Amino acid sequence: MNYADRLDQAVLSKGNPCLVGLDPHLDLMPEEFTAVRDPEATRQECASDVTRFLVGILDAVADIVPAVKPQLAFFEVLGPEGLAAYESVVAASHERGLIVIGDAKRGDIGSTAAAYAQAFLTGGPGSDPATLCDALTINPYLGSDSVQPFLEACDAAGAGLYILARTSNPSSAEFQTQGSPTLTERVADAIGAWGAERLGTCGFSSVGAVVGATHPAELVALRERMPHTPLLLPGFGAQGATAADVVGGFTEGCRGALVNSSRGILFAARDGGNWKDAARQAAQQMAEELSQALSSPA
Amino acid sequence: MNYADRLDQAVLSKGNPCLVGLDPHLDLMPEEFTAVRDPEATRQECASDVTRFLVGILDAVADIVPAVKPQLAFFEVLGPEGLAAYESVVAASHERGLIVIGDAKRGDIGSTAAAYAQAFLTGGPGSDPATLCDALTINPYLGSDSVQPFLEACDAAGAGLYILARTSNPSSAEFQTQGSPTLTERVADAIGAWGAERLGTCGFSSVGAVVGATHPAELVALRERMPHTPLLLPGFGAQGATAADVVGGFTEGCRGALVNSSRGILFAARDGGNWKDAARQAAQQMAEELSQALSSPA
Repeated sequence: MNYADRLDQAVLSKGNPCLVGLDPHLDLMPEEFTAVRDPEATRQECASDVTRFLVGILDAVADIVPAVKPQLAFFEVLGPEGLAAYESVVAASHERGLIVIGDAKRGDIGSTAAAYAQAFLTGGPGSDPATLCDALTINPYLGSDSVQPFLEACDAAGAGLYILARTSNPSSAEFQTQGSPTLTERVADAIGAWGAERLGTCGFSSVGAVVGATHPAELVALRERMPHTPLLLPGFGAQGATAADVVGGFTEGCRGALVNSSRGILFAARDGGNWKDAARQAAQQMAEELSQALSSPA
Repeated sequence: MNYADRLDQAVLSKGNPCLVGLDPHLDLMPEEFTAVRDPEATRQECASDVTRFLVGILDAVADIVPAVKPQLAFFEVLGPEGLAAYESVVAASHERGLIVIGDAKRGDIGSTAAAYAQAFLTGGPGSDPATLCDALTINPYLGSDSVQPFLEACDAAGAGLYILARTSNPSSAEFQTQGSPTLTERVADAIGAWGAERLGTCGFSSVGAVVGATHPAELVALRERMPHTPLLLPGFGAQGATAADVVGGFTEGCRGALVNSSRGILFAARDGGNWKDAARQAAQQMAEELSQALSSPA
């Protein structure tokens, strides 16, 4: 089944569009994880901490949310051992029935993009299919020939993409909102075109867009500009966006967008309490806030 | 010493601005590397082939060229074992006195960019300093707060950056040359500003720009727009650019730019001859072509 339909079914079955960002900031991990605080610890010891922490998070939220989004940077900082931890976490997510969106934001010329697409979506030599992502975030700066190998991987593997359109960070306007049409609008039109050939029976495409929840007015305009594009909305919680801010990204009920929260769920137990319980409660609270906002009349 | 001065000295001491791109396309490797052709081979066996091949290339070119540029995608396709091979190749490059530019084209919001900067430039927990890059390629789509952590890593580690401005691929104009000023021009101005605070005694900055050698007229204009910015020029050889096309990127003799060739050197022995000799000859020929073009009156 294509990504668009798998995602839509997963969101509808959980009745929840929350995406848990797996960003294991080493500095923020709960106190019981001692290796990441020990300057003498090996990468293997730190990577084991990361895996154990994230599998605990998965156990806490797997029955609540449809999908998770591991952020590659926090694994790459631990080298090969970190990448092995990433693969374990992807496999553990799949074992728990979760959709996995690899947050890699890769982008390169054709033959290199093909290698990245293989690494994350279709599988390189000797790889285990359980460690591949269902979808991947990519960066559009290099244009369509850099996106094409990822589109081909989507077609071959029933995978999805989320292409950066309007990011959530404070400096994002520096290049993205310049020009007329703006860079974001040009990218959005391209995403719509790439996605038009990859529609699921649900009416959404397998080619999605990243649009920061921190820009609610633009989100409404981009939802209209890309009516069939599944959106990935970062910026909820720690970055300041609220449930009311993301409503404009949805099409009908909880369909059409995923709202990401990373630190707000992973590190909810700021006071040193039970971090699994705190993560579960934070995910439940986020789901309730979204459910209320999405059921309120506009 | 800062990156700008280290690079300038290395280029002057070799009298050669050639950069060898370490892009180990598994399909193109010489016949003696059997694991990468064997569907039953493990990732470890393939990664060992990649390491042995690239160390052979390093031995063939280390006395000719100042720098190498490993492309992360071709290592990531082999998972954790591939990333270990990447680290071995970086360390082997340093042992041979070569400057290493990690071609990762990363780009993400602040806290995530900081993790990438640590992974490649300053070192994560338990990492070996010999496996870190001297410089890294990054993608500017997210704006200055996504670049800032990399700039801080440059300052902390004496490292350099090459920020994508105008890429060499056919679709690069799709977003990069749109608007007035164009996206590339806006990015070039930002690169100049980020670099102005990071000038070496050589007069160049540690903050460089990627400009495709496939656009010679724009290269001249961008050289003028960023007078202190070291350029990384991809597109020579396999992508079609010639020595005459890259001349506009240089400031004086062989200073101010690095010209990358990947496939043209790594896979020079197309006919199954001695691949090390062929790589060395291809690197020598490229150096001669550049030397001639750079000494000719404009």
